[in-house]
Amino acid sequence: MINITFLGTSGSLPTKERNPSAVLFNYEGELLLFDCGEGTQRQMMSAKTGMHNLKYIFLSHMHADHILGIPGLLQTMDFQGRTSDLFIYGPPGVSQFIEACDGLGLHKLKFEVHVVTLNPGDFAYHENFRVKAVRTDHGIVSLGYVFETPPRPGRFNRERAIELGVAPGPLFSKLHSGESVTLDDGRVVDPEIHGIVGPKRPGLKIVYSGDTKESESFFKEAANADLLIHESSFTDDLAESALEWKHSTAGGVARLSDKYKIQKLALVHISPRYSDDPSVVLNEALKYFKNTILPNDLDTIEIFPKESYLPE
Amino acid sequence: MINITFLGTSGSLPTKERNPSAVLFNYEGELLLFDCGEGTQRQMMSAKTGMHNLKYIFLSHMHADHILGIPGLLQTMDFQGRTSDLFIYGPPGVSQFIEACDGLGLHKLKFEVHVVTLNPGDFAYHENFRVKAVRTDHGIVSLGYVFETPPRPGRFNRERAIELGVAPGPLFSKLHSGESVTLDDGRVVDPEIHGIVGPKRPGLKIVYSGDTKESESFFKEAANADLLIHESSFTDDLAESALEWKHSTAGGVARLSDKYKIQKLALVHISPRYSDDPSVVLNEALKYFKNTILPNDLDTIEIFPKESYLPE
Repeated sequence: MINITFLGTSGSLPTKERNPSAVLFNYEGELLLFDCGEGTQRQMMSAKTGMHNLKYIFLSHMHADHILGIPGLLQTMDFQGRTSDLFIYGPPGVSQFIEACDGLGLHKLKFEVHVVTLNPGDFAYHENFRVKAVRTDHGIVSLGYVFETPPRPGRFNRERAIELGVAPGPLFSKLHSGESVTLDDGRVVDPEIHGIVGPKRPGLKIVYSGDTKESESFFKEAANADLLIHESSFTDDLAESALEWKHSTAGGVARLSDKYKIQKLALVHISPRYSDDPSVVLNEALKYFKNTILPNDLDTIEIFPKESYLPE
Repeated sequence: MINITFLGTSGSLPTKERNPSAVLFNYEGELLLFDCGEGTQRQMMSAKTGMHNLKYIFLSHMHADHILGIPGLLQTMDFQGRTSDLFIYGPPGVSQFIEACDGLGLHKLKFEVHVVTLNPGDFAYHENFRVKAVRTDHGIVSLGYVFETPPRPGRFNRERAIELGVAPGPLFSKLHSGESVTLDDGRVVDPEIHGIVGPKRPGLKIVYSGDTKESESFFKEAANADLLIHESSFTDDLAESALEWKHSTAGGVARLSDKYKIQKLALVHISPRYSDDPSVVLNEALKYFKNTILPNDLDTIEIFPKESYLPE
């Protein structure tokens, strides 16, 4: 299970209701931030996410509305006494941006900031997950991100194990982890052969688009995701503007989500054009893809992995 | 009359309730911003101040919590179609800061930004007001600001004018502006000699401290102000910390406000230390200076000028 908090869901212009772009993943207590628009640190305070466990920040591209929250966040983490390393990932240009932050009146930080440049196809690895940088199309160098956790062991068939004479306890754990066990009477029980453990189950797959026009190659990377967080700056009636500015329409994203078997779609990067009635954006997407949400700032959702792999 | 909106009243660390430093003056429809912490543009949206009439920004010093809102504000004003010039004033270092903003992913602005470096004693002049930069003491180059409007004409004694045979109408305006008028019967009526217009009345004086330890020289500049907006990062029990970090205590500021005949004191730059109960800060000041307020973010107050000059 993973918690996703939508810290900022506005388009390039913030509104009274929506802060600029930022999405926070909480995976087993570890925090990952995707983009960091101005005001993100206060959104974290309002959502009570804490900052101490934030170790990884992934930036989709170097437009101001996705990055201006970085210097203030660094400063505040320092004032709060942070000493542990922070990793900031982004496309080429990320190092220059972090260097430019030196000119913004920050006190000298007492923790290390590691800046890592990623290109499409690169991975950031962690013990419990990996994040793949994938190509998007926004007119400047930009990346989307695919967060994945490893496949999970198959379901444990407790009744079958007992039927075969295995006593509940440590042997169950061994069997569940894939090891065969030898019983007191000398019989060897194998979890796979004896049908005690089912087929491996998929891990989580959560995808973040950053800013991009609708891109089939991006959706190929996103296919089957448990959750796709995708920008949706326009509606179909403004498809030409979307193309011109290299942004997406709600309808376009929903149609591709259906085609690529996305499990759940969250629309973000909502323009002030739709402030009075954001349901216009949501309803357009719902026409093509049922499991769509349009989160408000500070909404948190829980996403569970699929129970089995989808048929090809 | 002037409207003052407290856009950000937090100390160096924002909180859920308080944004970093920013105070907006609305003087006859013209907006002046003093400091611009991260998130100021959204605070302006929440307070419905508009941005179009913001022409002057005064920065007190180049610490991050007072300036990080600048790049996002510039970007948003540009997206909103601004074409009119913007003036940013600040102490030495302000130009380098605005140059550093170039590395932050802003789209090219379609309006001119004039950056003006001020030193203590310098003035920024406007047709209807002037702003004096004054010395403060915060350990780095820093400025406070004294906003002043010109003296107003004296009160017009309508009854006296009628008594002298002046007919209400255009002649009243002439007299009020200081001119003498000749009546139909040849008599010359002089507004001063004939006691129709009272002594000149003071204009407005509003003072902003930025960050500073208590400074007698600063208070000499602030003397008699209709409103002093002063930082108050500590309380007297932490006077040593205040000195070390070159900040002020609520009590210290209140004692000097009493001594220098401040008319009204607004405490800002409130530390998260007092988040649970900011009345601790306010009550300490009230012990020494009765007309003290501790505004919340987005509070707006109206300040009227004094009716007469204070006795020396």
